Amino acid sequence: MKSDVGSLARPLRGIIPPMVTPLADRDALDVAGLERLVEHILAGGVHGLFILGTMGEAPSLSHRLRHELVDRVCALANRRVPVLVGIIDTSFVEALGLAHKAADAGADALVLPAPHYYPAGQPELLEFLRHLVPQLPLPAFLYNLPNHPRPMFDPETVQIAAAEMPGIVGLKDSSANMTYFRHLQFLMADRPDFALLMGPEMLLAETVLLGGHGGICGGANLLPRLYVDLYAAACAADMPRVQTLHRKVTELARTIYRVGRFESSFLKGLKCALSCLGICSDFLAEPLHRFRGPERDIVQRHITDLGITTNGFVSP
Amino acid sequence: MKSDVGSLARPLRGIIPPMVTPLADRDALDVAGLERLVEHILAGGVHGLFILGTMGEAPSLSHRLRHELVDRVCALANRRVPVLVGIIDTSFVEALGLAHKAADAGADALVLPAPHYYPAGQPELLEFLRHLVPQLPLPAFLYNLPNHPRPMFDPETVQIAAAEMPGIVGLKDSSANMTYFRHLQFLMADRPDFALLMGPEMLLAETVLLGGHGGICGGANLLPRLYVDLYAAACAADMPRVQTLHRKVTELARTIYRVGRFESSFLKGLKCALSCLGICSDFLAEPLHRFRGPERDIVQRHITDLGITTNGFVSP
Amino acid sequence: MKSDVGSLARPLRGIIPPMVTPLADRDALDVAGLERLVEHILAGGVHGLFILGTMGEAPSLSHRLRHELVDRVCALANRRVPVLVGIIDTSFVEALGLAHKAADAGADALVLPAPHYYPAGQPELLEFLRHLVPQLPLPAFLYNLPNHPRPMFDPETVQIAAAEMPGIVGLKDSSANMTYFRHLQFLMADRPDFALLMGPEMLLAETVLLGGHGGICGGANLLPRLYVDLYAAACAADMPRVQTLHRKVTELARTIYRVGRFESSFLKGLKCALSCLGICSDFLAEPLHRFRGPERDIVQRHITDLGITTNGFVSP
Amino acid sequence: MKSDVGSLARPLRGIIPPMVTPLADRDALDVAGLERLVEHILAGGVHGLFILGTMGEAPSLSHRLRHELVDRVCALANRRVPVLVGIIDTSFVEALGLAHKAADAGADALVLPAPHYYPAGQPELLEFLRHLVPQLPLPAFLYNLPNHPRPMFDPETVQIAAAEMPGIVGLKDSSANMTYFRHLQFLMADRPDFALLMGPEMLLAETVLLGGHGGICGGANLLPRLYVDLYAAACAADMPRVQTLHRKVTELARTIYRVGRFESSFLKGLKCALSCLGICSDFLAEPLHRFRGPERDIVQRHITDLGITTNGFVSP
Repeated sequence: MKSDVGSLARPLRGIIPPMVTPLADRDALDVAGLERLVEHILAGGVHGLFILGTMGEAPSLSHRLRHELVDRVCALANRRVPVLVGIIDTSFVEALGLAHKAADAGADALVLPAPHYYPAGQPELLEFLRHLVPQLPLPAFLYNLPNHPRPMFDPETVQIAAAEMPGIVGLKDSSANMTYFRHLQFLMADRPDFALLMGPEMLLAETVLLGGHGGICGGANLLPRLYVDLYAAACAADMPRVQTLHRKVTELARTIYRVGRFESSFLKGLKCALSCLGICSDFLAEPLHRFRGPERDIVQRHITDLGITTNGFVSP
Repeated sequence: MKSDVGSLARPLRGIIPPMVTPLADRDALDVAGLERLVEHILAGGVHGLFILGTMGEAPSLSHRLRHELVDRVCALANRRVPVLVGIIDTSFVEALGLAHKAADAGADALVLPAPHYYPAGQPELLEFLRHLVPQLPLPAFLYNLPNHPRPMFDPETVQIAAAEMPGIVGLKDSSANMTYFRHLQFLMADRPDFALLMGPEMLLAETVLLGGHGGICGGANLLPRLYVDLYAAACAADMPRVQTLHRKVTELARTIYRVGRFESSFLKGLKCALSCLGICSDFLAEPLHRFRGPERDIVQRHITDLGITTNGFVSP
Repeated sequence: MKSDVGSLARPLRGIIPPMVTPLADRDALDVAGLERLVEHILAGGVHGLFILGTMGEAPSLSHRLRHELVDRVCALANRRVPVLVGIIDTSFVEALGLAHKAADAGADALVLPAPHYYPAGQPELLEFLRHLVPQLPLPAFLYNLPNHPRPMFDPETVQIAAAEMPGIVGLKDSSANMTYFRHLQFLMADRPDFALLMGPEMLLAETVLLGGHGGICGGANLLPRLYVDLYAAACAADMPRVQTLHRKVTELARTIYRVGRFESSFLKGLKCALSCLGICSDFLAEPLHRFRGPERDIVQRHITDLGITTNGFVSP
Repeated sequence: MKSDVGSLARPLRGIIPPMVTPLADRDALDVAGLERLVEHILAGGVHGLFILGTMGEAPSLSHRLRHELVDRVCALANRRVPVLVGIIDTSFVEALGLAHKAADAGADALVLPAPHYYPAGQPELLEFLRHLVPQLPLPAFLYNLPNHPRPMFDPETVQIAAAEMPGIVGLKDSSANMTYFRHLQFLMADRPDFALLMGPEMLLAETVLLGGHGGICGGANLLPRLYVDLYAAACAADMPRVQTLHRKVTELARTIYRVGRFESSFLKGLKCALSCLGICSDFLAEPLHRFRGPERDIVQRHITDLGITTNGFVSP
């Protein structure tokens, strides 16, 4: 493990946006957009940056492009915040290769899902971790993928893995299953150094109010300050402010993320909005595709109605 | 498309085993085992060989190893039967890269699943095919993956894609949804050149009796002649023989494929049995792992009870 | 158990239509339509009549109306064919009450699903049968309900129950899971008196070709002779005739059952077609509702195109 | 609608325990236990009583017994708190009959799920409500049943129904889908009189912290005061107290509700604990059954360890 692992706060707290990947084409980064996006997000006061997750379209990208992205983002972030790198791959060998790339580029941690292709029981998931984690060159967060049914790490599996493997330092839960999250918190109560981070941003406020450590909020690509402020309000149990900001988060979910018919409309809406604001390209790698004109017009109208600018959220 | 595309029968008919991948380690082939396995299967009179499918653990293998396997199997098969190569990858670019590798190595066709990571509607699946298929250097079979729920090509999507894209020459259905398969057959009735192939071997007999073209039967790694004979009996509507051989197929499913607790016991049992017979290694890439002693003993006992030898099936 | 239980053939074979319930209103039978429907079905040469199943809207009907229906149908059938009565109820006591009503009215057998409200494991299902079956006044068929996920009787549970309880004489499987059905057939191979009957009519031909005993085919409300003929052709392994008749069955599924958006369109289309032919009312109990004008016009057009008359199917 | 409908607070707030049904046998109430249970619960300061829900085993009970229970509980409660009666039935006519019984007995409101047998789209659910609600003699709460997948009322459907039908006064959500609940709250923000109540008790604290109106908490059968206190603490945003009491709620979920293998262990554990405390019988109607000796011993040990007495919860 690299020498400055101590640089990663334990537990990691706050808002760590799951960065979208600005693309010029299916195998080319939008380099200028990437630079603008990183600066836009960091200007919001976030506490970390998570690249190559589900929101970053990692599974759709070539390994070459993933490696390029790791290099560029680590250089752009330049140690201002910790960089977390998702190693979503169905192949153990490929996931390990990406982990080494991340360490070489100066990333701070990895984000590791359960294998998602073959059905696996919890004993198999635990054995998988026992094989992989000791070989990882960086600390790792476990990752429950969105879109159930997919394999999840049972609370008991997390507890055992965290006790056995010092390299596992937290978990990102995108399952949207709040009962699961509460069980997990209960089991990990004696591990205050273990970060429990929420995926779905609609659940950020209550996560933090009841002791969770923060959120991997997709909307923080667009409005990083909103989520940072909501996190702070929840930490302070400032309930009126929590209510107000939570409502703004919900407004995004009711507008920009709901254009279009399919489950991917969250990601499409987010990239479209970033493009409307001039931050980066809205190209999406197959099998997804960007919104066409009519849908883009709706997104633009929502942006105007909500008073969103590149400097943040100005609601009426 | 390569010049000898005409060499692939239209429709492709018969038994095309989905070959397991003999592994010496997580990133090393069992080369001697691979040679024995290819010869064992071809000696059974099969009509093709399908590598890098779900049964071949393709998603768990590194790209390097997948490429090596393609080269070796094409060389070993040496045009005795058509070789089909699965291009299961969540990345368009990587899937296309593997397709070109297959063409260069002399494979005959590709097997292409719907993208399985992001939820996609049928219009998105169709658009995905419209982007990918014209770039493929070989004819392709669509592939409905096992383990529902996963995206499937709707019958209507198959019909449209087959009409638009001459490069799509058939479909392998591993969904185990026989109602789906019958709807699809009905829609494709005017395309006698389009191969409709069944994944689950328990459904081979009825597939062929009612006009399907064959099966991608996992058990044909172990007992290729059994499946070839059942296919022939079903083609001839020799019902007593169909019943007898179908019963033997079911015996495998009730014995060798059912050792162990998890859904992956089919693959584990198959590799274990091949190892017991001295054909190839039973190593499995993570997240799966080979059977330990007690489970292997059970498999060995089933082999003895069923009278299985490397030369075929000798039931009492 | 009533004295003439021997009157039920063992195994029960053939086509036993799951009769729709002709309704004048949500709590009133269409009595004249019921008489016409029973005669229409029996004229097709069917081997039994199954009332109060899923196709009969049993769960939507009041207990009073269910009792009335049992009385009327038993009287109308007048022992020309065996009458089977579904006892679908979430309450043990109510299900038992309906069973006694059926016996009193002269029905021949019951059809009994797994409890579907509370999640139950196989041991609980088996214990449920051990409590209920000895109290039943008639022989019973187990029933795997349509629309997975719902509790199913595992093949092993069926095997144990059938061995322990002489009152269980067969199973109707509406799960559309052909692999399940083949496993079950294998396990029950030494019980030739135990009837294995298929629900989804698209799977009738292959069920019978490979040793199943018949089908509970919804379409036999409309075209009883078609299914009786297909059953006979499959028994005789007359493959060209099987193919022809199976194709006609599929045509219904591609036309009359597919009008409208929801999963209930099978039932709506069927009742609508019966109404178009003047056989009975198309009223549906809540939560379903009959087709309105535009959808009815489409059904009428399909009837004309397919050449359906009250006397049977006359395709070009 | 009965004249004193105004007696039901709008919105209904607080803890409304979903009462278990004390049974002496499958069709007989444990009358003495029922009296003790009602007094035990009311002594905890709850804000209402909900009978004949999922926790009350309503679907497993005969209609006769359901009617008897309604009479007895209304008499026992004697207007000290509002009584809500679940009308879970697959038949419109039967559900309506039970609603009239509830009104006659003096109950205050009904709890009405989406029809759960036939798959129904949202338009069909809305039409179902339009038929049923105007005929109901009492105000009604919509009810999303536990154990997904089952039909749920979409947030938009709730919004439309609440706007159209004054008889619908709130919703109980047992889906455990917190994202759903937050969407619904957002849509209903302009209807402060519409009660949004949470089913799963693990989610009570956060529900109330972010503006929900209360909980239908199963554990309040056993420890009513605990839930009433947690509700009050959350209303007051007393975060340390919320954390402490939420932790006690979770302890129940990790102990008493987790004995036994199946999903029904929550209900079994709860009834067993009530029996251990001498409050009422632990008999369960089929298909469920009470815990046997070894499991009961574990529940008893948990009760001792947690310091539970009939007077409430005394943890170390």
